[in-house]
Parts: sequence; C-alpha cells; structure tokens
Amino acid sequence: MPANSLTDRLFSNPAMARVFSAENTVQRMLDVEAALAHALAVEDVIPEAAVVPIQSACKAARIDMKALSAAARHAGNLAIPLVKQLTAEVASIDAQAARYVHWGATSQDIIDTGMVLQLREAIDLLEVELAELADALAGLAHRHRDTPMIGRTWLQHALPITFGLKAAGWLDAVLRHQQRLAALRADIAVLQFGGAAGTLASLGNRGLPVADALARALALQLPELPWHAHRDRMAECATVVGLLTGTLAKIARDLSLQMQTEVGELAEPSAPGRGGSSTMPHKRNPVACVNALAAAARVPALVSTMLAVMDNEHERALGGWQAEWDTLPEIASLCGASLSSLRDVIEGLEVNAERMHANIGQTRGLVMAEAVSLALAAHIGRAHAHERVEAACRAALAQDTGLREALAADPDIATRLSAAELDKLFEPLAYTGEAGALVDRVLAAHRARKG
Amino acid sequence: MPANSLTDRLFSNPAMARVFSAENTVQRMLDVEAALAHALAVEDVIPEAAVVPIQSACKAARIDMKALSAAARHAGNLAIPLVKQLTAEVASIDAQAARYVHWGATSQDIIDTGMVLQLREAIDLLEVELAELADALAGLAHRHRDTPMIGRTWLQHALPITFGLKAAGWLDAVLRHQQRLAALRADIAVLQFGGAAGTLASLGNRGLPVADALARALALQLPELPWHAHRDRMAECATVVGLLTGTLAKIARDLSLQMQTEVGELAEPSAPGRGGSSTMPHKRNPVACVNALAAAARVPALVSTMLAVMDNEHERALGGWQAEWDTLPEIASLCGASLSSLRDVIEGLEVNAERMHANIGQTRGLVMAEAVSLALAAHIGRAHAHERVEAACRAALAQDTGLREALAADPDIATRLSAAELDKLFEPLAYTGEAGALVDRVLAAHRARKG
Amino acid sequence: MPANSLTDRLFSNPAMARVFSAENTVQRMLDVEAALAHALAVEDVIPEAAVVPIQSACKAARIDMKALSAAARHAGNLAIPLVKQLTAEVASIDAQAARYVHWGATSQDIIDTGMVLQLREAIDLLEVELAELADALAGLAHRHRDTPMIGRTWLQHALPITFGLKAAGWLDAVLRHQQRLAALRADIAVLQFGGAAGTLASLGNRGLPVADALARALALQLPELPWHAHRDRMAECATVVGLLTGTLAKIARDLSLQMQTEVGELAEPSAPGRGGSSTMPHKRNPVACVNALAAAARVPALVSTMLAVMDNEHERALGGWQAEWDTLPEIASLCGASLSSLRDVIEGLEVNAERMHANIGQTRGLVMAEAVSLALAAHIGRAHAHERVEAACRAALAQDTGLREALAADPDIATRLSAAELDKLFEPLAYTGEAGALVDRVLAAHRARKG
Amino acid sequence: MPANSLTDRLFSNPAMARVFSAENTVQRMLDVEAALAHALAVEDVIPEAAVVPIQSACKAARIDMKALSAAARHAGNLAIPLVKQLTAEVASIDAQAARYVHWGATSQDIIDTGMVLQLREAIDLLEVELAELADALAGLAHRHRDTPMIGRTWLQHALPITFGLKAAGWLDAVLRHQQRLAALRADIAVLQFGGAAGTLASLGNRGLPVADALARALALQLPELPWHAHRDRMAECATVVGLLTGTLAKIARDLSLQMQTEVGELAEPSAPGRGGSSTMPHKRNPVACVNALAAAARVPALVSTMLAVMDNEHERALGGWQAEWDTLPEIASLCGASLSSLRDVIEGLEVNAERMHANIGQTRGLVMAEAVSLALAAHIGRAHAHERVEAACRAALAQDTGLREALAADPDIATRLSAAELDKLFEPLAYTGEAGALVDRVLAAHRARKG
Repeated sequence: MPANSLTDRLFSNPAMARVFSAENTVQRMLDVEAALAHALAVEDVIPEAAVVPIQSACKAARIDMKALSAAARHAGNLAIPLVKQLTAEVASIDAQAARYVHWGATSQDIIDTGMVLQLREAIDLLEVELAELADALAGLAHRHRDTPMIGRTWLQHALPITFGLKAAGWLDAVLRHQQRLAALRADIAVLQFGGAAGTLASLGNRGLPVADALARALALQLPELPWHAHRDRMAECATVVGLLTGTLAKIARDLSLQMQTEVGELAEPSAPGRGGSSTMPHKRNPVACVNALAAAARVPALVSTMLAVMDNEHERALGGWQAEWDTLPEIASLCGASLSSLRDVIEGLEVNAERMHANIGQTRGLVMAEAVSLALAAHIGRAHAHERVEAACRAALAQDTGLREALAADPDIATRLSAAELDKLFEPLAYTGEAGALVDRVLAAHRARKG
Repeated sequence: MPANSLTDRLFSNPAMARVFSAENTVQRMLDVEAALAHALAVEDVIPEAAVVPIQSACKAARIDMKALSAAARHAGNLAIPLVKQLTAEVASIDAQAARYVHWGATSQDIIDTGMVLQLREAIDLLEVELAELADALAGLAHRHRDTPMIGRTWLQHALPITFGLKAAGWLDAVLRHQQRLAALRADIAVLQFGGAAGTLASLGNRGLPVADALARALALQLPELPWHAHRDRMAECATVVGLLTGTLAKIARDLSLQMQTEVGELAEPSAPGRGGSSTMPHKRNPVACVNALAAAARVPALVSTMLAVMDNEHERALGGWQAEWDTLPEIASLCGASLSSLRDVIEGLEVNAERMHANIGQTRGLVMAEAVSLALAAHIGRAHAHERVEAACRAALAQDTGLREALAADPDIATRLSAAELDKLFEPLAYTGEAGALVDRVLAAHRARKG
Repeated sequence: MPANSLTDRLFSNPAMARVFSAENTVQRMLDVEAALAHALAVEDVIPEAAVVPIQSACKAARIDMKALSAAARHAGNLAIPLVKQLTAEVASIDAQAARYVHWGATSQDIIDTGMVLQLREAIDLLEVELAELADALAGLAHRHRDTPMIGRTWLQHALPITFGLKAAGWLDAVLRHQQRLAALRADIAVLQFGGAAGTLASLGNRGLPVADALARALALQLPELPWHAHRDRMAECATVVGLLTGTLAKIARDLSLQMQTEVGELAEPSAPGRGGSSTMPHKRNPVACVNALAAAARVPALVSTMLAVMDNEHERALGGWQAEWDTLPEIASLCGASLSSLRDVIEGLEVNAERMHANIGQTRGLVMAEAVSLALAAHIGRAHAHERVEAACRAALAQDTGLREALAADPDIATRLSAAELDKLFEPLAYTGEAGALVDRVLAAHRARKG
Repeated sequence: MPANSLTDRLFSNPAMARVFSAENTVQRMLDVEAALAHALAVEDVIPEAAVVPIQSACKAARIDMKALSAAARHAGNLAIPLVKQLTAEVASIDAQAARYVHWGATSQDIIDTGMVLQLREAIDLLEVELAELADALAGLAHRHRDTPMIGRTWLQHALPITFGLKAAGWLDAVLRHQQRLAALRADIAVLQFGGAAGTLASLGNRGLPVADALARALALQLPELPWHAHRDRMAECATVVGLLTGTLAKIARDLSLQMQTEVGELAEPSAPGRGGSSTMPHKRNPVACVNALAAAARVPALVSTMLAVMDNEHERALGGWQAEWDTLPEIASLCGASLSSLRDVIEGLEVNAERMHANIGQTRGLVMAEAVSLALAAHIGRAHAHERVEAACRAALAQDTGLREALAADPDIATRLSAAELDKLFEPLAYTGEAGALVDRVLAAHRARKG
C-alpha cells in the first residue's frame, strides 16, 4: 500500500476515487477495445464472429492487476500489457477471435480514449455535487438575505453588508462554474483513434469509417483528426477543474476566517468526534475547510504541469504525455474532495446571526461613519460634513468611546441629526445599499439555471 | 529603466506592449472614471454640468506618471493617487465638478474595470494574429497535403505521414483556440462596480441604475453582483491564454526539431542578420522558435499563480488581488510575443520537401515493414507474414543493409511480392492512410470558420 | 513606460531595483568585458596597450540604452548589440584596441557572468536587510519573552503561549535563512567563460590561464568547466531566495491575522496617510503585510519556472536559458520588496499586550482545561481528573458560563483545588511550559551569529 | 487499488517506494512513539516499566492499515487513529503502560518526526544511487576524453567538442548535487517535539530534557524550538531534490536528442522487449529518458506547492501543512525513479563514436571555419582572414560544396595554407581547445570526492 493511499483518504471523495481507481481505469480501456471490435466488424474489417468473444473478455475482473502493473513498467505504458492479457483471455474463449484484438489501434488510442471516458464520469460527478452546493448556497442566501454582518477588506472592518450578499457572491461564482463544466463536458468527449502515426494507415481505406463507428459506439465526438500530440483538450480539463477548485478555496477561506474563535460567526456542522480534540473540549476544528484549502494549495501547480507539458514532440511525446497520467486524475480527485467537503459544510452550516450583529459593533460605530457623513451632508454640505465626522472619528478613537458618543459631543452635529435619526443611521441594515436586490438577482439566476 | 524593459524587448509583441503600457493602463482607468461621470449624471446623482469637465480631464497625457508611480507605493494601489491627480486636474477646469470625481466608486472598481478593458483589447489583438496564423497554416497544409515525411514518436522514426497532416494538426488546435478566445472575450467583458464593500451603499437607491448605465457606456455586461473577491473570470483569462501558449509551444517544438542540422527539413525565413553568427556562417538559429519556447516555459507557472491567489479573503483580498496586477499582463504579453513570432515563421517558413523525402530513408526501409507485412498477409496469412518480415528486419539490421534487400533474400517473400509491388510498398505516400482525408477535414473546418 | 514599471513600484525595494536596473545590468556586463581585456593582456593574448582604451569605454553611461534594447530583439540577446556598441566606443578612442574587444568570449559568457555579479550584489543586500530584521525580531522576542497570548491552531484557540515565543519562532527561521544566503553567496560566485562551445578553442593553449586571470579579476571562483547548459547554480539561487520569501510570508500571515479588527493584538507602524482610507477613519490597512503576501504568492511559481527550464539542450539551450533572464531578477526583486516591508513593520510594530491578554479569555477559561486537569490529577488520578474537567467544560459551554464557574459548581473539584490554586491555574503565563527557555535558546543563537 | 498505484509503477524506484510505503510511514511514526516512551522514562516522567510494553507494540505489522486509513479521514490526520490503535495494542500487553502512550506529544510531533526519518532514508538512497551515477559518468568521461563530436547550440551545429567534455559536464553537476544532498541530510535531521502549542507545557519542567533525550534516541538534532508552523526545512528538502531532478532531466534531454534516428550517436542499453515495438522492429524507444523527463516535468510544480504553503497560520496551519503530506513523498519518488533510470542508462550506454565523428561532417566543414580563420590570421591578419573565410563559407553554401573545396578555390588562401595544414585544421579534435584539460579537472574532483 503506497503511503499516499493513506493520506489520500484524508482528502478523498469516495465516488471520485472509484472513477480513478485501477479497476475503472482498466475497465474504461477495455470498453474502448470492446467498442473497437464492434466498429471493426460493422465496417467488415474483422469477422462479426470475433466481436462477442472479444467483448465478453473485456471485463476488468478478468485482468490480473498486479501482473499488469509490474509489466507496465517494462513496456512503458499500461496498454501494451493490457492488450497482451486481453488477447490471452480472448484466446481462451476463441483462438480465432484473439487475432483481432486491438486491430488498427495504437496504445495511445486506448489510453487516451479510456481517460476521456473517465473524465466524462468525473465531470458528471462534479456537476451533481456542484448543483447540490448551489442549492445549499441559494438556501443560505435566501434565509440570510437581510442578516446584517460586517464587510471586511484587507482583514479590517469596512462597511456593513449582509450574510445573504456574501452567500450570493459564492453562489454567483458557482453558477459560472456550472456553465464551464457543461461546456467542458462537450469539449473533451472526443475520440482518440489514429494508429501508430495518426494516419490510420493499417486500416487501408476503412480508417475513417471505423473511427466514426467507434466514436458513435462510445457516444464520443469524432475529431477532425487524431490528437496524440495536441493536448489542449486535456490541459483545458485541468484548467476548468482548477478554476472550480479556486472558487471552492475562496469559500473555504471565508468560512474558516468567520469560524475563528475571535469571530465566531460560523461553525462547521457538529458530529461526534468531528474536528474535536480530546484535551481541548472547546475546539471545533474546521476540518472540511482544511480539506478544501489543502486541495486548493496543490491544484494550481498541477495545472501548471498540464500546461507545461503541452509541447509534445512530433507525433508522440517524449515525457510530456506520460506526465499527464497521474496529474489529471490527481486534479480531479482533489477538486472532488474539496467539493464534497464544502457541500457538506454549507448544507449543515451553523450560522450565528447574533454574533454577526455584535461583531459589527467592534469598532464602536466607526464603520457607520460614511452613512452619518452622507446624512449630515444634506444639512451642512458634503465637504463640511466629511470634516466633522472625521473629527468625531478621531475623537472617538482618542477618547476610547463610540462614534455615536463622539457625534453627540459635537453641537454642529447634535443640532442637525436627532436621536431618532442617529438610531436609524447606526442601524447597519439601513446602510447595505443594493445588497438585497443583488441577492435577488443571483437567486433568480439560480432558479433560471435549474429551469 | 528596469532591466526587464531590456529583456522584455527580446520577447515582445509591440502592439501587445502598447495595450499594457503605463499610458494605456492609466487611460483605461480614466475611461472608467469618465464613463462613471456620465452614468451618474444620467441617473441624476451628480449634476450634468460636471460631466464635461470630468471627461475632458480624463486623458492619460494630463497625468504625471512618475508622481503617480511614486505615490502608488504609499497608497497601496494606483487608483488612489490617480483619483487625486484627476481631481486636481478637474478642479483646474471647474472646481464644482471636482467634487463629483470617482463618486460612489472604490479603487478596485476602477482598477478591475480598467483591466477588463485592457484584456478585451488584448484578446482582440490575439484574435487577429491567431487568424493570420490559421491562414498561414491552412496554406501550408494545403500545399503539402501530399508531401511525404517521416512520422516520429519518442523522437524515433515510426511510419510515414505527410507534412500536410502535421500542419493540419497544428491548424486544428489553432481553430479550437479561436473558439476559446471568442468565448473568453464574452466571459470577461464584465463591469466591476460595487463601492467600498460591494453594496453600492453610498449611492442610496441609485446603485444598480448607475451600474447599469456605466456598463452600457463601456459596452460591458452588468454582472449579477460585484465580484471584488471572486476572481474566477480573471483566472479564466489566464488559463485560456495559457492554453494557447501551450499549443504555440508545441508548434515551435516541432519546428525547432525539424530545423536541427541533422534533420534540415525546415528553416525560419532568412533575413539579413537574423539568427546569424559572425563567426559561424552556417548558423541560422531559430530565434522565433526560441521566443515561443521561452514564453511557454514561463506562462504555466504564471497561470498557477493566478489560480493560487483565487482564495481572496472576505470582501477584498490581502495580497491575492495585488498579485494579479503584474501577472495577468505578463501572461498576455508572453503569449502575444510567442504568437507574433510564430505567425511570422509560418508565413515565411522554408520547407525542404526533398530532405523530408530523404529522411524517410534513414532507416533504410524499416519504417515500411508494417506496410510490407500487411501486403504479404494476403498471400501467406497475417501471423506468418509478420514473422517473415520481422526476420527480414532483423537481418537488415544485422547485415547493415536495407529492408528491401533483406526481403529479396527471403524466397518466401520474393516469390510472393513482385519488384513492382515492392516498389509500390516502399513508396511512402502509398502508406499514409487517411492523411489526405484528414487534412481535407481540417481545411474544411477552417473555411467554415472564416464563413 | 511598461505597465509593470507602475505596479512594480508598489512592491519594490529601491536598492534591489537598482541592482536589476537596465543601467546596472549593462554595467556588470561591461565589467566583465573590462576584466576580460585585463586577463587577456596578462596572458599575452592581446597587447597591453589595448587594455586601457577598452576599460575606459566600459561605462554604462556611454551606451545608448534605447538602441541596445531595440537591437537585442533582432539579435536574440543583449550581448551581441552591446559588444557592437562597445567596439564602436573603443574604436573612437583607439582603433587598434577595438580589435580586441570580447576576444575569445561568447555572448553567454558575458550575460551569465554579468548576472552572477548582479546576484552577488542582490544577496549582499538581502543579507544586510535580513540581519536588520533579525535584530528587530530579537528585540521583540526579548521584550515580550513573558507576554502571554493565546496559541492558535487551525485558527482556533488552543493553549497559552507567549508573544516572545512566537517572535522567537520567526527569528529562528530567519537565522536559518542567514546561513542559507551565506552558503548561496559562495556557491553562485562562479565565473562563466567557455567560448562558443565551452572549449575555449579560439584561445589556443591560453584558455584556462585566461579564465583563471578573469576569475581572479572579478573575485569569482573558477569552475571546473564552463556551465552554459548546466543551470543548477542559477536555479539554486531561485530556490534559496524562494525559501526566504516563504518564511517572510509566514511572518506576514501571522501579523495580518493578529491585526484583524476582531483580534487587534498588533498594528503596523502608523504614519500619515499610510494604509488609511479617506472615508473610513478607523482603517489601518496592513500594507506592508500585503506587500509580503503578494510577493510570496508570486515567487513559488517563478521558482518552478527556474527548475523547469534546467533541461537545456546540448551546449546551449533553445528557450530554457532565455526564460531565466526576467525570472531570476523578478524573484530577487519580489523577495527584496517583501523583506524591506517586513523589516520596517517589525522595527515599528505596535504590540497591544493588553489585548493579547484579554483575547486569552475569549473561551472563558476553556483553554486552561488541560492545566486544571493536570493539577487535579495529583489529587484524584489522571483518568478521573480528565473526566471531571471535561464535564465541567461541557457544562460551561451548555450554561454559557466560564470554566472557572463550572469548576466551582463541581464539589469534587472545589474541595480539592482552593481558590488560590485556581487563581494560579487560570494565570496563563503559569502554563507556558518551556516558552521562556525556548526564547532564550533562540536569542543565544542570534547573539552567537552576530559574534 | 488507486489508479496511481498502476501508473506509479511506470515511474518508480522500488527502494524509494518502500521508503514511502504505508508500512514504512506507519513504522517511522511508531519508532517516534517508542523512542518517546524511552525518553520519558529516562527523565522519570513515566515509569520505566511502561517502556517495554509500549516499545513491543510499536510494530507496523500490528496495525490494521485499512481501519487506520478509514479513521484518518474523520480525525483529520494519521496520528490520532494510530495512537488509538497503538494504545489498544499496548493495553492488550499491559493496561498500566497504555496510560503513558504518546505522553506530552501532539499529533504533529509524531507525523513530522516520522516524515523526517523517512526523508533521511530517502536521502541516503539518493546518495547511493547518485554516487553510482557519478562513477558511471566518470567512466564515460574518461573513456571518451578524446572522442570528438559536434557541439550544438540552439539545436544547430556549432563547433567540435568531445563526448568526454559533455560527460564531464554532466558529472560536474552531479558532484554539486552530491554536496547539496549531504548538506540537506544534516539540515533536515531535526526533531519535532513541542506538544499542543509548541511550549511542552504538559511536561512541566521536564519538557526540554525529554526533548533532548528523544532527539538523541532518534539520532536527530534538537532544534532551538519546535517548528510546527515553520516549514522551511521541509520546503528546502523539496528544492534540493527538485534541483537534482532538473539536472537529471538535462542529462536525459541530451541523451534523447543524441538518440534520435537522424543523430544516432547514443542508444539506451538493449534488453529483450525493452523500448521495443512489435510492429516496428527498428525502434528502440528511450524509455529511461522518458522516465527522467516525465518526472522532471512534474517535480518543479510540486516544489512550488511546497514553497507556496509555507505561510502556515499561527501555531498550526489550516491546509498548508496538510498539503505537504503527499507532495514531498511524490517529489522524492519521482526523483528516485528518474535517478535509477538514468543510472541504468549511463551504466549501459551504447556510444557510437563513428556516428559522432560522421555527424561533425554534416555541414561539410563549415563548423571548422573559425579554426581556419584563426590559422589564416597569422598570415594575412585577423580582419582580412575573417573576411576571406566568410566568403568561402558563403561560396560553399551557394555551390553546395564543402568548405575545404571552397577554400581551395580561393588563391589567397590556397597559397597560405598547405594541404597538410588544411588536413590538420579539418581534424576536429585539433580544435577542441581545453576540452581534455577540463575533463581532467572534473575527473580529479570526482576522485577527490571519493577520497
């Protein structure tokens, strides 16, 4: 058991782990071999009688995985020893049929198309979980549309916002990623089939017809031409998943900052043992956020690898293609782990609206200075108002009192703004501008997407 | 003059350099301020009379760039000192109007929207040059549709292909990038306008109407909500440009390998002094390929930076946003330099078809073994044919002779395949399968795109 | 003016900017040419009379920088047009001497050795500022050796520590980087001199003697052989500076988290206008921390570029070497900017020890549970003590009271631990273990280093 | 079985795989627990009687790995469930002793120190194989000290060098990496032991003595203070291994380019089935080079991850530490795979000196132009000589003849340089300058290192 099979568990999405398991990797390659037999028979390249024996042998359970893995090192890729094992399996069923295994294909055709099938599964999975996350975020934005909290810039209190606006911002980004994933799914569902040098020469004049039949059998697009050494689709897959991982990290970063002991506005859902500590009973560690942040710390570099290896030499690369094999699954797996962790957190998020409200007051009213200044401007002009309020702010800080008290001490202000008016001005929700309308816009977009 | 202004010249696309020059950076920010004044007046937030004075001051030529640059360090961003200079300029025209400069906006609104305007220009530029590259590649694919050359895998001779197929492969990838750039242009042309904490609170109930008018004035989309701390669009821009840079590197890699002294199939267009050496008159260094390869060596890491800084804290980031400022322009600039270099090379590429033909013979016929084996199979069965040809190959290597000679020495073969048949089998173009049809598919796609 | 000359200012260390300015870049290359003339004359390869004319022309002020930059693009590197200009300058002094300019050298000899000279300057600069930072940290660790604060893990309160321990941790890492920089300075101060293919062939049997004289003239080591295509020293320089940048980011991360409005334990030194906001008088944005964090967000990827381009082809690379030219200076510049920012912050750091003390109480004593449990164990055994204290913690959380109150409510505990004992147990500094001794160890190491 | 356990085999070094196997990962953590029990007893913190039961349970074979892996996800790290299993195992031997398992330690103490022990093993392994590679390279440099070949810059023929010089360049870089590894081994062999917040508070006044005893038991250094959140040592390990991987890639790049069909100067050692192709008998794919190049394509990005996550928050990180767990072993594993592959290749490298000699002639003498020009300068002055030879070069290219023929056609030259002299000038080895001496310098350094 390699060590990362230990630590991978810490950061894994079990469904995604199945997509990129050894079993599924081999099965998808065998699916390509099975479909190829069918396509070759349809185009009369091989006898129809060979199809059933070949297809019935194309089961991962029939493959000796340990032997496969050991032989791969010698051969330089997985397809060569897999075809060998498959041929032997077919031969055990029908010796004649064994002659037609892998006909016309090159190793890379099988490996790349198998990977495409896995990536399609991975995207399907991400789409399902992302839709669940979107729903949970929409619920949050809806419920907290008018829950005031402090907006923070540079990790400093700025002005009031609403927690609904924050959640809507998260949701808005998620909606964009849903669009990106849908577009990606279409872009990468493309057959790889070109033979040794991409000309399909060994199939004579049946090359393109077989390719077309194969693409249809696998529900993939037939590309204009084989793309053995053009990896932009694979790299694009990495980038789109990388972008999603980045947004998940932004959400996790916000959550974890709001979960700080000193802030206390949010908490991960509690469960026995989760994020706890035997010696420190007050601790509720944000384990899901850590999952998302650790994943996001690793994915950008992996994406750069996918971009860096695009300069494949000639008709098949010398290292660049091989560097993709572990990298792309790792990106998808890390994103999947981050996504399922965050979805769980958002679905069960504990929101402390009281603490949000209380935190707004940490600066003792200074964050409302802009609101007061604008109100005062109606009476004494903008420039003068700004000046008076700024002076009150300085006074508040110097005398260690609240802004409201400092304002009261300035007769220029006290005579213009009544206590009732000041009450209103120090009501944070009254100074959240378009926050509600912005939340509504995003919720409408979410509803529209769900159709 | 910073040192990189020296070396940047080595790798620059002058038009792209103008897009990201200090002058244009400032002008695009001023364009946003000018459009904001208009939008505020349309919505009656500021007096109509303030618009002309503000707009007439919004000229980069009026800005003291050195003072701006010096002040920026103190202020933490470019917008704060720029607004100060702008306000002073407006005041010199109309003191009243100066009060309405930058009304309701935050620094990030101006910086981000200015960057969006620059990126739109950058994409326009890439699209023009990429279309020129596509045309040049189409010409190459068309002219060399039937020019045989050796296909190489793992830097080893594999089977014959055509140079047209290789060029069509390059073109096919370029066509995909044209689609990606078009989609990107739409995705990123989005207004940033949210005020200090993204609520537009200081505009009272005019926030969204002003935003809408501002977006229309700049021909940008109005987003569902401000995106100060959601950087996926910016990061997406980096990834799409990064993908294009990767494909350009693949083309440059192929070109440079074919330009090796020992291969000699291609050469960069010659010009006095270009890529030469005073002491070594035989040298024609592939300088444009170096441009493309050096750019591609730098871009993937820069893209990873853009992905890594997506986890912006709360409503405005602490470092992540600032890390974008130089990174995104650098990505666009490197891609632009690579693209213009490669376009020039492809437009003037010297193709040595004779050398391509001669190189096919380097293995003295071994690369035709598969073709011979398939032909022989019609006579003596596939398995037996494979065995005989393999033996002939071994003999050819052992006796240091050609495959054709070795085949002739095997009576089993000599009696089955006539000299005329063997002539045909050793004609590389006869064993390039669907190469011609594949080229035609891509050329059709290129024509379709041009409409 | 390229845009990044605007934004670079935001993140710059002026002294480091001078090291990598165009002027200094050219001057260091000219220094190599001047030393080469001397070395060639010493070994009687060129006439002694040529030395003075060449050396007197080796002044950056004599070079037309614009023309140089423009010509470099055509030539593929800076050295070719620089040697041309230099030769013309020498010829204007002494036509005979002009024949001996750049004798025996190749462009890369001049560019690489010039870069080595700049890197040595850059390291000297980093060493000075790092020593200043170390001193400031030592002061902090000393002054706050016994200032209690809360230790935080996973952004959650854990156990008390001291601010001195935190500062000592920062200092300890800085001391390691001082060692690394000193080792690096020795490693990279190495001459590059090999001629066109690294054999020094054009110098006949004077190659090594000239190289030796040249190395001595520049106070550089003579390497075993030229290293045109072996870039490990340059890449090592990137990694060592990258490591330092990472530690600076760790310090900046801690500072910025402690500077949060809700935490308020630290503040950047205040200065008129610094990190302020005209509308938000309460704001003191941590601008220096942003500098350090933005730099650290960019450097790791740049380091990966330096590692990725090490696979230089044959005797001189095709893109890999060229990709270093801007990357290495950018790494040094970003690190320099981060370092000077942080040094300034630490030298003027405002420490709010009261707030540190108050923050320990945020969990109302829960962070002292371990201390109480250990004390109670002496009376009722470890297992039983742990159980009772855990119950008290749960009770405190449930009843929204402090741990001390909850403990008092448990007669099992109240009878064992007197009020005085409890007072002591809830004194944070009493439960900081070896913190003081650990601070002393680091301070001793700092003193030892200063010698 | 995760998919990467399939593909990892393609790129693995079996001995390195053992170092980072799940079994060894767990064993090294248990080694720390065992040593801790000893150290605690030495300092009288726990009873001596507890040591043997604890130590006898500290065997990886006693651990249920599946349960461990499953529980780790819930717990957030491997140490928590491991300590639980270990405690149960100890209890099954001696219930009293079980109370003292993991006393005073925090999870990170065990995980980090375990990783340090694994890294020390990994470095030991790299050092052994690197020494073997150095020996093989020294053999190559020695045997081919005077084997002429063409030097290539920008993938173009430049001037003659020797294969010995090339091999010596590889060796010289390897010698530097041997020094770096030795320094690294000392730097990272450091204990991690600080308890929950790095103060060792729960050990009262026995904290530092226990730490000291623990360090001695594990043959590790005692650091000045715990380094839970200061990761520069771990990141340094990544960079040093990354640098080595880069040099290995440089060697593999050179090898693979020299192994091209058109160049044919080198070949990987042949073995039945190795790098072959059933259909293409002429193929000998450079599989070991691919291993090294694919590894090197992945490592730089992984190093950037290690640098990027150094900004650990406060006393324990929120994602940054966790991101190291798989990244650092992956870097070591990829480097190990590259190293063992390359060592095998160099030990069995097939060198075709004839082909090297023949390839020098590809430009038909143009690469000797500099040599001729220098010789002629003695007769007609440098400037005039350069001019004549350049003209001859142009003539040779224009008339598609060799330089020697073109020189003979110029009476100015023919009268000055005799046929015998020209013979000598066109003898490549005569124009390799200091190549032999440079080889000797490196071989001497290699011998000195071996002592």
